[in-house]
Amino acid sequence: MEIDLNADVGEGFGAYALGNDEALLGLVSSANIACGFHAGDPGVMERTVGRALRGGAALGAHPGYPDLQGFGRRSLALSENEVYAAVLYQIGALRAFARAAGSDLRHVKPHGALYNDAARNPALARGAARAVKAAGGNLILVGLPGCELEAAAVEAGLPYAREFFADRAYQDDGSLVPRSRPDAVIHDEDACVERVLRAVRDGTVVTATGKSIPVRADTVCLHGDNPEAVAFARRLRSALQAAGISIRPVAPGDARS
Amino acid sequence: MEIDLNADVGEGFGAYALGNDEALLGLVSSANIACGFHAGDPGVMERTVGRALRGGAALGAHPGYPDLQGFGRRSLALSENEVYAAVLYQIGALRAFARAAGSDLRHVKPHGALYNDAARNPALARGAARAVKAAGGNLILVGLPGCELEAAAVEAGLPYAREFFADRAYQDDGSLVPRSRPDAVIHDEDACVERVLRAVRDGTVVTATGKSIPVRADTVCLHGDNPEAVAFARRLRSALQAAGISIRPVAPGDARS
Amino acid sequence: MEIDLNADVGEGFGAYALGNDEALLGLVSSANIACGFHAGDPGVMERTVGRALRGGAALGAHPGYPDLQGFGRRSLALSENEVYAAVLYQIGALRAFARAAGSDLRHVKPHGALYNDAARNPALARGAARAVKAAGGNLILVGLPGCELEAAAVEAGLPYAREFFADRAYQDDGSLVPRSRPDAVIHDEDACVERVLRAVRDGTVVTATGKSIPVRADTVCLHGDNPEAVAFARRLRSALQAAGISIRPVAPGDARS
Amino acid sequence: MEIDLNADVGEGFGAYALGNDEALLGLVSSANIACGFHAGDPGVMERTVGRALRGGAALGAHPGYPDLQGFGRRSLALSENEVYAAVLYQIGALRAFARAAGSDLRHVKPHGALYNDAARNPALARGAARAVKAAGGNLILVGLPGCELEAAAVEAGLPYAREFFADRAYQDDGSLVPRSRPDAVIHDEDACVERVLRAVRDGTVVTATGKSIPVRADTVCLHGDNPEAVAFARRLRSALQAAGISIRPVAPGDARS
Repeated sequence: MEIDLNADVGEGFGAYALGNDEALLGLVSSANIACGFHAGDPGVMERTVGRALRGGAALGAHPGYPDLQGFGRRSLALSENEVYAAVLYQIGALRAFARAAGSDLRHVKPHGALYNDAARNPALARGAARAVKAAGGNLILVGLPGCELEAAAVEAGLPYAREFFADRAYQDDGSLVPRSRPDAVIHDEDACVERVLRAVRDGTVVTATGKSIPVRADTVCLHGDNPEAVAFARRLRSALQAAGISIRPVAPGDARS
Repeated sequence: MEIDLNADVGEGFGAYALGNDEALLGLVSSANIACGFHAGDPGVMERTVGRALRGGAALGAHPGYPDLQGFGRRSLALSENEVYAAVLYQIGALRAFARAAGSDLRHVKPHGALYNDAARNPALARGAARAVKAAGGNLILVGLPGCELEAAAVEAGLPYAREFFADRAYQDDGSLVPRSRPDAVIHDEDACVERVLRAVRDGTVVTATGKSIPVRADTVCLHGDNPEAVAFARRLRSALQAAGISIRPVAPGDARS
Repeated sequence: MEIDLNADVGEGFGAYALGNDEALLGLVSSANIACGFHAGDPGVMERTVGRALRGGAALGAHPGYPDLQGFGRRSLALSENEVYAAVLYQIGALRAFARAAGSDLRHVKPHGALYNDAARNPALARGAARAVKAAGGNLILVGLPGCELEAAAVEAGLPYAREFFADRAYQDDGSLVPRSRPDAVIHDEDACVERVLRAVRDGTVVTATGKSIPVRADTVCLHGDNPEAVAFARRLRSALQAAGISIRPVAPGDARS
Repeated sequence: MEIDLNADVGEGFGAYALGNDEALLGLVSSANIACGFHAGDPGVMERTVGRALRGGAALGAHPGYPDLQGFGRRSLALSENEVYAAVLYQIGALRAFARAAGSDLRHVKPHGALYNDAARNPALARGAARAVKAAGGNLILVGLPGCELEAAAVEAGLPYAREFFADRAYQDDGSLVPRSRPDAVIHDEDACVERVLRAVRDGTVVTATGKSIPVRADTVCLHGDNPEAVAFARRLRSALQAAGISIRPVAPGDARS
């Protein structure tokens, strides 16, 4: 059994640092690297590619809306074509650093508001999926399971990796409990580890109502915003390894299903 | 005999148009396409790549300083590494559109203040040349003859195409008469056409002092800012063809010497 | 009888020109000047303030979303406080140029998507109105009649000027016929002039269904994007003057209704 | 006897934090607040104005080059008029927040490369000084003693406050020992405190060669980049108070001489 652990990295900009890349890049198998629109700049990207490769992580583009001030967390009403061009631009820019380092990109995970908007809006999903397809190289698109982005990936003939959230509660239809609800986030770390193990081994998750439903977990997102997050990442990694689950980048083969 | 005609295109941004791409892209053999830093945005880049290919022009990146407000015409004190990363980023971004259109880049011509600064400053020249080399694909670097950028290209093992200016006076050492001098620009169109023919056929140019010196002309830059510039481009093109000189993109072979 | 004619000006950026400021600034009584977020830069703002004053137009801020690439025409999901800060920032920046020229701002008209979003969204409307209030100097807020922005202006104790559209069809409830409908825009220039005269003199407009309804026209927006628009502006101005209607900036007194 | 302590604050941007504003804003008498070009955004500016006022600091604009990626530390070749417009824009934007909070600006201290470039280049100095003058309100310009910026301030009839550096070595001509020299920075905190006391009380500083020369210290810059810097700021503040030197914002009267 295998699972991918991914983290968003390279989200500094100029004199600004953010996150805990050094710690995370020794723990994850996939690095989602910001591409200069919501965060990241050419120098940060170059350094982050190097760090990710030294840490053994597969490289992925983490494209966002062109909104540095909002860190890509504010919806921006782009058209399908604007999303297509913005995502293709960002993939290309990051890929140049990956190739200059003797490697290449393996996946693309949209960031923030673009991730969420493309999960709900078929036109934006299509724009993003078309860009990943146009970039070539059989890149894997990463996103929520069962959303518009997955549908667009399937339509474009792209491999699609479904992200599982260790600390988020699920509804009976497989969607996440909205953050507006008090039970949206699971704070018990033991429970979070247990949920990931169950998702990987059994392919199920227990919902907020106590029901066990099927879930597809190709990759689990780790956060690095605070020391607790990094400690949890270490702990989850150990638990997975103890359970005989190997941690490795998602591959087009498992993603395509 | 052969010569390349190049022009800077794709220099609009969002709602802003600039230049006369439609006219120029039927006349030149090489298109220098802005990459989003001094001008251009992802949508403009996508459309410009399409137009250039339809017009039969080879695609080139036209990277500049990250200074949209100054249109890349103001020197910005980047370090060698900052130039390296900025140029590599821009090449990668544009290349994604070129490849999505089933083509690829053939050359890189720095823009504005970066073009001039890299001609004089060995560190900036090295940053730019290293970026072009790192981008891979045997891209041709385009710039002034006999400058630091050429030296850096040679050092990096890159093909280098030397640009000839139809309407600029030359000094006896082969450098351009500075724009501060009243005789810097040649306004007589007949003379301009004649100078290009002579540079291509004889490899010489007559300097401001009346001396004939050797000059290397791999490519001639055409402007598109006004109707007269486009008319001159048409005229030069006809004169070259009438003289049996074929107009085609610069090739690594002739550029390398 | 009196009416204000307003136009959006100063929407260039760096090397990019847009619109027809020179022509418009001799025709309008109020200039809405871009403030550097959706368009405009410090140099453009300085020059536009000078031109507006020479043309006899009252100065107004034209704040937009921080989205130069989208020219402020794409909705960006700002919070109320983000709108407050963004609008106050832009007013302050432009006011510095107005005061340096010995004048001051008289009004604020939000731009593009911010204009439309603030008309519908009470939180955004409140953010914008609070900013105008906080800026001080009894600035007049300009917008659609009967919308959330007007309500927020009233709540903030601000004078509010209602904009009338010469070439847009109205629905029976006083709202504009959406641009998606084929009858949204009135192309007959005679009819457009007649509608403005009627709105000013009688305070009524004939809707798309043929009904006459009351309308409040404190100011009429003129466009400058093409030669026809400028010609129409001249014609409307003449017709107003011929009808004995004086053209002058909106004043807090008439705006407060 | 009196002295001003100033610090650069409000240099975050969007999701990015920088510096230690909370600590510094209880220690300094003058706050130099970033204005959105090299750092800061409208929301950060609003919050920083509030914090500075609560901490009892006078408000000042800290305008920089439009280069967020370089944090305003890279020279950008602006013309005199471009500096004028950029500085006036930034002063106006910040002033709107100061006035909305019931206060106003008292001083302007250019940031980073603009600070250094305007100290050496008369045209840039003139652009900055003209902007401060045009902004009105008798703002005090802050900079190096005896430089082009001071000359431009005098010419513009502006009060000018001279900055003293606690931890920098001075040359016999009153200029700073360049950072390229190993003895540029004084690391002994006792010595730094002693130098400030001597500058305030005696108006002298001992240079790198051991000579005592006159020095004018209207304000001392405190850093906040690390815990040591804040600890030093506390210590200097205590030493000044123990010596009976009161800490208060620079006033036009003392600055003008």
